[in-house]
Amino acid sequence: MADLKSTFLKVYSVLKSELLEDPAFEWTDDSRQWVERMLDYNVPGGKLNRGLSVIDSYKLLKEGKELTEEEIFLASSLGWCIEWLQAYFLVLDDIMDNSHTRRGQPCWFRVPKVGLIAANDGIILRNHIPRILRKHFRNKPYYVDLLDLFNEVEFQTASGQMIDLITTIEGEKDLSKYTLSLHRRIVQYKTAYYSFYLSVACALLMSGEQLDNHIDVKNILVDMGIYFQVQIGTDIEDFKCSWLVVKALELCNEEQKKALHENYGKPDPANVAKVKALYKELDLQGVFVEYESKSYEKLVTSIEVHPSKAVQAVLKSFLGKIYKRQK
Amino acid sequence: MADLKSTFLKVYSVLKSELLEDPAFEWTDDSRQWVERMLDYNVPGGKLNRGLSVIDSYKLLKEGKELTEEEIFLASSLGWCIEWLQAYFLVLDDIMDNSHTRRGQPCWFRVPKVGLIAANDGIILRNHIPRILRKHFRNKPYYVDLLDLFNEVEFQTASGQMIDLITTIEGEKDLSKYTLSLHRRIVQYKTAYYSFYLSVACALLMSGEQLDNHIDVKNILVDMGIYFQVQIGTDIEDFKCSWLVVKALELCNEEQKKALHENYGKPDPANVAKVKALYKELDLQGVFVEYESKSYEKLVTSIEVHPSKAVQAVLKSFLGKIYKRQK
Repeated sequence: MADLKSTFLKVYSVLKSELLEDPAFEWTDDSRQWVERMLDYNVPGGKLNRGLSVIDSYKLLKEGKELTEEEIFLASSLGWCIEWLQAYFLVLDDIMDNSHTRRGQPCWFRVPKVGLIAANDGIILRNHIPRILRKHFRNKPYYVDLLDLFNEVEFQTASGQMIDLITTIEGEKDLSKYTLSLHRRIVQYKTAYYSFYLSVACALLMSGEQLDNHIDVKNILVDMGIYFQVQIGTDIEDFKCSWLVVKALELCNEEQKKALHENYGKPDPANVAKVKALYKELDLQGVFVEYESKSYEKLVTSIEVHPSKAVQAVLKSFLGKIYKRQK
Repeated sequence: MADLKSTFLKVYSVLKSELLEDPAFEWTDDSRQWVERMLDYNVPGGKLNRGLSVIDSYKLLKEGKELTEEEIFLASSLGWCIEWLQAYFLVLDDIMDNSHTRRGQPCWFRVPKVGLIAANDGIILRNHIPRILRKHFRNKPYYVDLLDLFNEVEFQTASGQMIDLITTIEGEKDLSKYTLSLHRRIVQYKTAYYSFYLSVACALLMSGEQLDNHIDVKNILVDMGIYFQVQIGTDIEDFKCSWLVVKALELCNEEQKKALHENYGKPDPANVAKVKALYKELDLQGVFVEYESKSYEKLVTSIEVHPSKAVQAVLKSFLGKIYKRQK
């Protein structure tokens, strides 16, 4: 596994070198240095789960057959495209959220002399994806499907980010808009497609599959993404539309609702404590445990009816990874 | 001509309606309203020259044959894709430059309650392009070429924007870095590809041409874009790398260079006046007139050697439009 990661990181170096020599642009020394530093700062510093999942999934789809060097390189390149996509979202999200740190270091836009140039760097990151795809996949029969896939998933992510942003517009903290269905939609579009579906979809395309024949796989992975996000959606101070607060709103009586409106989304520890007390009153912990076990069972059932054992293995591998978080 | 513009604007309404019903996303009323307002605010308010050029160019390539309804719709849709691309760049550029107005109204990010959500709106604008292309061109033999074209031109524009931004980093106003070749590169990548080449390239693809066979057309249009930008590159206060200052640096003696370093890029009218006086001393006006007439002659010559009369007509139509600015 450590070996897989080091192979994966070697492919990053290759892709980076190619991008820094991209013939579609006449480089200057300054611009090459800028992009190299920007990539090293923003792309490879995460856990790389999304990227590594492409290789894992492709291996499972090949049912134990040894991968060739080329296959490993191509699956890794697609994995890196997802990591590039993630870096692009994070660089821009941090600007929009006025965040301070990311992955244990200052956000890119807070680095001296970067500032709002970071917005253009985000765009550069995004533009690298089709450059990588064109260089390595142009002659593959699934090239156009890859372009469509990345375009569709990016569109869905940006749309999810939009509903999240317009729901939490400063000064318009209208809790009554936070319904379970809106919460589900935000999580689904903002996170699930690119974090869960995209890597398997890449592996399926590399295996010669048509994505139209795998709508069920998409649905299961998106459900997993939602389930995963609910696990970690516990921000009380942030006024983000988290699962806990929408569930609380659904369950509470008028008096409790009033208390929630008065205390939710305020940074004062006294307010936060009141919200937490209310969650305890409503036994949200118990509700969550039940939600979790039901979701898990539902996911297992839908995986087990899938006709392909190889696809089942891919889906179970994902489920194993996210279920482990809880144990 | 007024008729062409009204047809073009009707296509905008069709494309907008389709985007607001895009099945790749589960819309809420709020999000649909947000996107509609954002589109109306940012997309159709310019001169629409780039978009209309696709239809003009396609007509000239068809050598007088009447266009079908479908052809008009498709050429208009590609024109609108360029206008969407422009809107995306402008929304993000205004954030990065901290601008105040655009096209006679406040910049989108300055509209109340929009703020930095504008950055995500820019991304949404960008994502609409592949949505439009997929909906209307997926079955065309040139679909993948359209995707590649828009991707490459966007990459070039973002790269040009990058060298512009890193050359003018706040607090590092190093005039000695401003050479004619750097200036040319900024203008070429940041503006010329998307403003001049892209519309003709769209028309060529619609006509069944391979872009690899038209590198000469690309070169001529990019040269025209550079020539056009030099005409309007007269910002003395902004510390932008304009043609005037790089030419001045090339022509001046040590004493004049010192004066330029001391006064350039400062907003005080006294500094601006000194820079203007220096430009007069160097007869930059005369140098510019000569540059202009030489560029014009060179462009005419390169157009006239082109083997296709139809392509010549397209290129001459562009040249006529930009040359008129001066007269």
